[in-house]
Amino acid sequence: MSGSAPRHRRLCKQDKFLFGVAYYPEHWREEDRQEDPDRMAVAGVNVVRMGEFAWDLMERVEGEYDFAFFDEQIARLANLGISTIFCTPTATPPRWLTVQYPDTLRIDRDGRRMEHGTRQHCCTNSARLREYGWRITSALTTHFAGNPSVIGWQTDNELNCHFSECYCPSCHEAFINWCRRRYNNEINLLNQAWGTAFWSMSYTDFEQLVLPYDRPARWNPGHMLDYWRFLSDTTAEFQREQVEILRKGNPNWFITHNGLMANVDYWKFAEDLDFLGVDIYPGFGGQENIHGVAFIADRCRSYGGSFMVPELESGPGGQVGYILPTPRPGQMRMWLYQVIAHGADSVMHFRWRSCRFGAEEYWCGVLDHDNKPRRRYEEFAREGIELRHIGKEMLGTSVDISAAVLIEHDQDLAWKTMPLGMPSPESQSLTLHGELWRRKLPVGLVEAHDSFEGPRLLIVPSFTMMDDDLASRLTEFARQGGVLVVMAWSGTRDRFGRITPLSAPGLLAELAGVTVEEFGKLEKGENSLTFADGTTASGFMWYELLRPTTAKPVARWSREHMAGTVGLTVNQVGEGKVFYVGTYAAAEEASALLGPALDEAKIEPVVAGLPEGVEAVRRSGKGKSLLFLLNHSCDEQLVSRVPAGVDLISGKTITGSLTLPPKEVAVIHVGRNLSVK
Amino acid sequence: MSGSAPRHRRLCKQDKFLFGVAYYPEHWREEDRQEDPDRMAVAGVNVVRMGEFAWDLMERVEGEYDFAFFDEQIARLANLGISTIFCTPTATPPRWLTVQYPDTLRIDRDGRRMEHGTRQHCCTNSARLREYGWRITSALTTHFAGNPSVIGWQTDNELNCHFSECYCPSCHEAFINWCRRRYNNEINLLNQAWGTAFWSMSYTDFEQLVLPYDRPARWNPGHMLDYWRFLSDTTAEFQREQVEILRKGNPNWFITHNGLMANVDYWKFAEDLDFLGVDIYPGFGGQENIHGVAFIADRCRSYGGSFMVPELESGPGGQVGYILPTPRPGQMRMWLYQVIAHGADSVMHFRWRSCRFGAEEYWCGVLDHDNKPRRRYEEFAREGIELRHIGKEMLGTSVDISAAVLIEHDQDLAWKTMPLGMPSPESQSLTLHGELWRRKLPVGLVEAHDSFEGPRLLIVPSFTMMDDDLASRLTEFARQGGVLVVMAWSGTRDRFGRITPLSAPGLLAELAGVTVEEFGKLEKGENSLTFADGTTASGFMWYELLRPTTAKPVARWSREHMAGTVGLTVNQVGEGKVFYVGTYAAAEEASALLGPALDEAKIEPVVAGLPEGVEAVRRSGKGKSLLFLLNHSCDEQLVSRVPAGVDLISGKTITGSLTLPPKEVAVIHVGRNLSVK
Amino acid sequence: MSGSAPRHRRLCKQDKFLFGVAYYPEHWREEDRQEDPDRMAVAGVNVVRMGEFAWDLMERVEGEYDFAFFDEQIARLANLGISTIFCTPTATPPRWLTVQYPDTLRIDRDGRRMEHGTRQHCCTNSARLREYGWRITSALTTHFAGNPSVIGWQTDNELNCHFSECYCPSCHEAFINWCRRRYNNEINLLNQAWGTAFWSMSYTDFEQLVLPYDRPARWNPGHMLDYWRFLSDTTAEFQREQVEILRKGNPNWFITHNGLMANVDYWKFAEDLDFLGVDIYPGFGGQENIHGVAFIADRCRSYGGSFMVPELESGPGGQVGYILPTPRPGQMRMWLYQVIAHGADSVMHFRWRSCRFGAEEYWCGVLDHDNKPRRRYEEFAREGIELRHIGKEMLGTSVDISAAVLIEHDQDLAWKTMPLGMPSPESQSLTLHGELWRRKLPVGLVEAHDSFEGPRLLIVPSFTMMDDDLASRLTEFARQGGVLVVMAWSGTRDRFGRITPLSAPGLLAELAGVTVEEFGKLEKGENSLTFADGTTASGFMWYELLRPTTAKPVARWSREHMAGTVGLTVNQVGEGKVFYVGTYAAAEEASALLGPALDEAKIEPVVAGLPEGVEAVRRSGKGKSLLFLLNHSCDEQLVSRVPAGVDLISGKTITGSLTLPPKEVAVIHVGRNLSVK
Repeated sequence: MSGSAPRHRRLCKQDKFLFGVAYYPEHWREEDRQEDPDRMAVAGVNVVRMGEFAWDLMERVEGEYDFAFFDEQIARLANLGISTIFCTPTATPPRWLTVQYPDTLRIDRDGRRMEHGTRQHCCTNSARLREYGWRITSALTTHFAGNPSVIGWQTDNELNCHFSECYCPSCHEAFINWCRRRYNNEINLLNQAWGTAFWSMSYTDFEQLVLPYDRPARWNPGHMLDYWRFLSDTTAEFQREQVEILRKGNPNWFITHNGLMANVDYWKFAEDLDFLGVDIYPGFGGQENIHGVAFIADRCRSYGGSFMVPELESGPGGQVGYILPTPRPGQMRMWLYQVIAHGADSVMHFRWRSCRFGAEEYWCGVLDHDNKPRRRYEEFAREGIELRHIGKEMLGTSVDISAAVLIEHDQDLAWKTMPLGMPSPESQSLTLHGELWRRKLPVGLVEAHDSFEGPRLLIVPSFTMMDDDLASRLTEFARQGGVLVVMAWSGTRDRFGRITPLSAPGLLAELAGVTVEEFGKLEKGENSLTFADGTTASGFMWYELLRPTTAKPVARWSREHMAGTVGLTVNQVGEGKVFYVGTYAAAEEASALLGPALDEAKIEPVVAGLPEGVEAVRRSGKGKSLLFLLNHSCDEQLVSRVPAGVDLISGKTITGSLTLPPKEVAVIHVGRNLSVK
Repeated sequence: MSGSAPRHRRLCKQDKFLFGVAYYPEHWREEDRQEDPDRMAVAGVNVVRMGEFAWDLMERVEGEYDFAFFDEQIARLANLGISTIFCTPTATPPRWLTVQYPDTLRIDRDGRRMEHGTRQHCCTNSARLREYGWRITSALTTHFAGNPSVIGWQTDNELNCHFSECYCPSCHEAFINWCRRRYNNEINLLNQAWGTAFWSMSYTDFEQLVLPYDRPARWNPGHMLDYWRFLSDTTAEFQREQVEILRKGNPNWFITHNGLMANVDYWKFAEDLDFLGVDIYPGFGGQENIHGVAFIADRCRSYGGSFMVPELESGPGGQVGYILPTPRPGQMRMWLYQVIAHGADSVMHFRWRSCRFGAEEYWCGVLDHDNKPRRRYEEFAREGIELRHIGKEMLGTSVDISAAVLIEHDQDLAWKTMPLGMPSPESQSLTLHGELWRRKLPVGLVEAHDSFEGPRLLIVPSFTMMDDDLASRLTEFARQGGVLVVMAWSGTRDRFGRITPLSAPGLLAELAGVTVEEFGKLEKGENSLTFADGTTASGFMWYELLRPTTAKPVARWSREHMAGTVGLTVNQVGEGKVFYVGTYAAAEEASALLGPALDEAKIEPVVAGLPEGVEAVRRSGKGKSLLFLLNHSCDEQLVSRVPAGVDLISGKTITGSLTLPPKEVAVIHVGRNLSVK
Repeated sequence: MSGSAPRHRRLCKQDKFLFGVAYYPEHWREEDRQEDPDRMAVAGVNVVRMGEFAWDLMERVEGEYDFAFFDEQIARLANLGISTIFCTPTATPPRWLTVQYPDTLRIDRDGRRMEHGTRQHCCTNSARLREYGWRITSALTTHFAGNPSVIGWQTDNELNCHFSECYCPSCHEAFINWCRRRYNNEINLLNQAWGTAFWSMSYTDFEQLVLPYDRPARWNPGHMLDYWRFLSDTTAEFQREQVEILRKGNPNWFITHNGLMANVDYWKFAEDLDFLGVDIYPGFGGQENIHGVAFIADRCRSYGGSFMVPELESGPGGQVGYILPTPRPGQMRMWLYQVIAHGADSVMHFRWRSCRFGAEEYWCGVLDHDNKPRRRYEEFAREGIELRHIGKEMLGTSVDISAAVLIEHDQDLAWKTMPLGMPSPESQSLTLHGELWRRKLPVGLVEAHDSFEGPRLLIVPSFTMMDDDLASRLTEFARQGGVLVVMAWSGTRDRFGRITPLSAPGLLAELAGVTVEEFGKLEKGENSLTFADGTTASGFMWYELLRPTTAKPVARWSREHMAGTVGLTVNQVGEGKVFYVGTYAAAEEASALLGPALDEAKIEPVVAGLPEGVEAVRRSGKGKSLLFLLNHSCDEQLVSRVPAGVDLISGKTITGSLTLPPKEVAVIHVGRNLSVK
């Protein structure tokens, strides 16, 4: 894939910036449904998402489809210029389906059947559920194919949100078939891949395969790995069957889905979609979850390029056991612009109005339970009005990056088979991405299969699984002048998850110019790395003693029997450098560990000298460059060294510096209108 | 119900103060059973409770009843003037029953069947268990109807103590029928009540209903609410069927039950009984659980008036994983007088002698395992001798209160459907009652359906569910000069648990003279209320921003975007005042939050100037007034400003002051025998 | 059994000290299997253990046995003088067995069936599993009976390691039959033993018995006790059936098993074996788990005398959720000599080489995943070379002890039926043994059925169960001059686990010369014992107020109502003394609590004046005395007052003192070669 344009720069390809809400007319009275479109239009809404949990309303009796309720509401909205994204409603089958076919219900590892009364209780591997899913999807497709107000589709809803590890008979059968395909129907290939020689586990026939129960003792890692891959593949397959029906019905529709959930490899999953969606609830990270929003947006972009946010938090949200903090004034709008800066080409808040019943009665909407417009509605309307003017400017641009952390679903699966209490690759990505973000560098995440074009620095966060293709692409990246950082434990497994017979870091050993002579757990504060200048960085959870082959030592362990042994190295590879870091990165040590690599890579921040609370992101494309400046702090901030241009939000021309009020944003169209001034 | 005499002042109507023990002759040898009555009589025992776990002894073989064992022991006791309260033994069916009918066994939400070998393993909704329960109850009734030594009955034992959320087929069927009755057999009424439009949950037939499994995602609040109500109703129904048999057998018998356990609405449950019983084990609250005893006694009284304590801790008690502290010398007797002060008209210690086997072998009795009388027996005997003299004086009196916290089972259920991590109404009652108790005021709990006559101050602790009747009775209370305190989140739901379309506090908005403009979670120390005099009180877990309509601000929020917004108000209503508090009360902040209301209500303490460790409670009736003074501290305490009278315990005449030794009590018959002195 | 030679001094009776590894040739390629024997031989290996998880390789198709794979590898090893211990492979049945007979799979208390894909998933009470187990055992026996390179057997592997409380139908039936035998087919004996009069649990037929489910309320202690004994008995029975086959096949084979796991009474279990094995992974106790190694070795020795270590940690080890610390340089060898000092007569490291797949891929071996020899291999080879020279010197000697803590499986079961949050006898043994070990005394553990010959001090750590035999043997021990320490809660139960009608400490009351007047829970810091000299020791978790009958007070409680009451006593019995301690021992208080008894017993340390980090142990036999000196510290240590002799390791003659480098050991053959010098 190297050489082609990076997928993370793929555009959504729509001619309007979509802004709106998740809308559930089925929860409300006729009079509310009549009033809603007006209040939406006034607030700048041009799209709503609808229908994902209303199967019972569309097919009250098996086979009798009735979409009149939605037709009416779609028409009311359309009259005011508001389009609809419709959803396939397969996350919540009607009760008659599960009464008639209880075998559609999922079963967990403990043998407990899921039940009607919540959602996602039916198995996406159930042939029966799929069949009824096709039927309703086909009926919807036929019905809406000619309705221009329905502009696109979301498949299902947050697939795998609550439940993905199903142990129902359908899954058992599907897993056996998946294994047959994967291993060419040769059981011994499976035995070798899983290492069934251990603990006398070997199979002589695919029909003997079990789902991985992990009892009474610990699981087989190879078995688990394939099971988790199976879950991802069949979840994508479930969606693909719906996508095919929709595409046949109307090839102009865009099709998306709202992630990001567990046990889905979104790199593959996104191939069936026009673009990905990601539901973002920053409140789960607390009141000040600023980097978290950047990270999840960058993660989504790494799988499928620019994206939609079908659900963006719009109020306090909670369920049974907790409630997230109420967003402070201005916070919702900061989230909006932050996700746009990081690649969103459309955004819908969740949700129009707080529901008065059901499990999400305290997932609050733009409007409160009493339907009174208050400060969240005012803020929402400000967003809508602004985007009505400037939204289109975003289209055709995508996010510029100069440094990136690699990400790959399979690496997290490999880790999950045998974590040993260590951090996952994804959590290390969060830490390492966070350090680059804190330094205000143009940073992103790049999926391991994507092109490595663009960034000058790439970090490999404990990718235990390695293959020749990835190793050679990483080598090529370095050879051509890139700076590569390889973190501990990398390269120790093959693609079946088996530990390599090569000395660690295995296929990366030559590239890194080291072998790992010893490894082990580190207690907090147990040991640290000392650099040439005498500074130190604490080792985090894991140590490796390195034997440089072609690499040079950069830092050595400080204490115990490890004292003096090399722990961090650099290797010259072609025009580039490869650093190997023999420990994990704690957030507070990441700066010291990455320091030498960053010195080498000489990456410029998005804007030099930015104040602490201000984030800068650049989107560019078609000769246009947009600079987002977001003041997340509660104080006014002076930003200097701003390139000249026009702030699309204020409409003002900016020449060199800019004062941002608290929780305020500027979107500078760089170079525009300069002549005018 | 307003206007009639408050139920919390209802009397037990017996002519003797009953004092004794829970007694299990079936655990002991013939020689022990012969000796026991003498040692009981010497200690002043006039009643024992018997039989609740001995079904296997009464009906060794199905249908062959044999009560000779108990006849003999009842007679031995009667010979020494000791009466018996007998129990229906339905908490522990004999093994032949569950062998023959395994469908009587309960099933939990995870599908696990309960099993013979503990207790409460059979489902009270099982038609079969009920049938066998009637038979043994009928046989017992017939057998004992003519025995004057059997003076009353306890139904079953601690219904719902270990297990109430049963998922067996009997419960499923019973729940469907309960729903049919509740919704007049109209499924759409149920759909509307539960809000099944959310997540496509709607039912088209009652037969489709499921028990609420809460998997894989979170439950439907309306569904849970009705399920919990169903549990309470059918538990009461199970008991009622036994009560009817007993009443027919001998209308002179009193009938009670020993609570208080989960998922029972004791307000309704008590209607079938002559009075409630409550088992009290203060040790669960630790060595110094003084307010906890007052609270549970007041809670019991709020449901059914004066009550019995069928089980009062008499030693260290423990089971498998824990053991409670051994009561210090004098502690048992302090508990005794404290529960009497709070409305008990009879008390039995649990239990006569520590058992030498079984799951409760370390729930220790008055006598130790080795049957030797030691200090706990001495203390017990002191109690018995004293009560033989003064017990009768208690009868005909009930507890005086001037301030109360409201309590209602349904409010806790509504909270439990969607707690959001907030405190329950009951736990807030504990905090608020505790603050009034700490101030030595004559405080109690009043059930929401009871008459509000008596108290001058009423506190509504986050009653989310509201209806016109309760709202108007609260209004009437204020109008007539009462001081009402309404805590945050009140009035936000209807009686189906659905959130009201009215602005919060909904049906109480006019009464409180405010609406809630915004709410949310508070972190510890995040914000506080500032009063006019500059003092502050920390907000606790939840904030509300209030918009006064007719109310006046009393305190305002101090920080963040909330700064200056009103958080506590007072509204003049008729002759009274209504305070609205826009946060929860932490124990350490309750004083500040309630301060303005207490200033307004001007409630006198039971005795002015009481020392820290001394509790005072007044019982009155038939022109008699009893003042209980309890020195819970380990130091001697001087109590002044005591009304003149006779201390029933010491027999001394008291005129103005009194010195109480550590862990000592006085019961002053106010005004009595003054002339004599 | 008193009077015969103590079992803890029984010898392994082999003519060679066995040293080697657990070896899994089935995980490796032909070329690895060819190279391995050479590298083993070079490192001094003379034995490997093999085959315990390879059933699927031995019987790929039901009934078709093929051991050629192992024959070849055994022969290759034998060519270099390396013998093989073979294992019955019953811990991991092949997949065809569970496909054909799913009823062989275990079921847990929650009804969840164990599944193929880990290990120990089949029930050792399944008649079917036993049958297939006999067949493979018979086939192995026949096959290897004539092979002199196979010198002995291990049965199964770590029986009950992951799972012992099985609730499958086979267990249910086996339990009923076990109860029939235990109670002579008289159900009323069982009813009395279990105390089924409590909670109406009585049975009228053995067929009515249930396994103890502990739901919904707490279990019956007598029922649990018998269930746990049943587990131990039938686990031993499962093994015994294999042992009988093996013994018949070749009476010269030794037979062992690798413990120590849950729910096995190894005192009984060892009776079927030539000697016990114990798998030792010190890393579970952290980097500095020095006493832990001594304790587990002493525990194993108490059951069966000198022993084998079939698995001794050889690297970092971890699984899914954790990883143990990597052993520091020298640590493996210190573990080796420590276990030998404590009675091991053969040791195998686990394992030869880290596996590249499976659930134990990070239980690292002597060689790393990449098969490169590194420091752990070097250390291993040093061990092997040393033992090749001196190993034989160990044989015929066993460990000398002068003080001991009693241990008995049944006591821990009795505790487990009703722990009340208190420490178990075994954990108290650890504390008390630890205190004597810290004082450098020659300490061990003695099983309650063993002879009490040898030690001058015996400690009884809260043995609640007591019988006449044990009481009289303890009395005899004291009478003949021994010092006995009886800890709180002892003597309170009979052998059915029922609480005794006697005043505590029951059958030990006369021996201790006290009765317990009161007991209860102690909070941390709540109370302490004051000795005559004014020193104090905090009470730990539990207090008892003692009434001396013939005993003298040694210490009294200090505070609260207990102030002045006796809490620790001494009683003169014949020539000896009996101390009674009315509390548990916290590690930091054990010294004070045991002080008076130790003063009395006057036990000499193994070597006087040992430095802090140095451990000394003596093995003797056949006129030979070996003194082990182990410097566990990281500093050089000077040991003086060493008896003259030769250090077998260095070959040097020692006369009076010795300097031990960090992590170094000396094994002094006392008195040897003195003349030579």
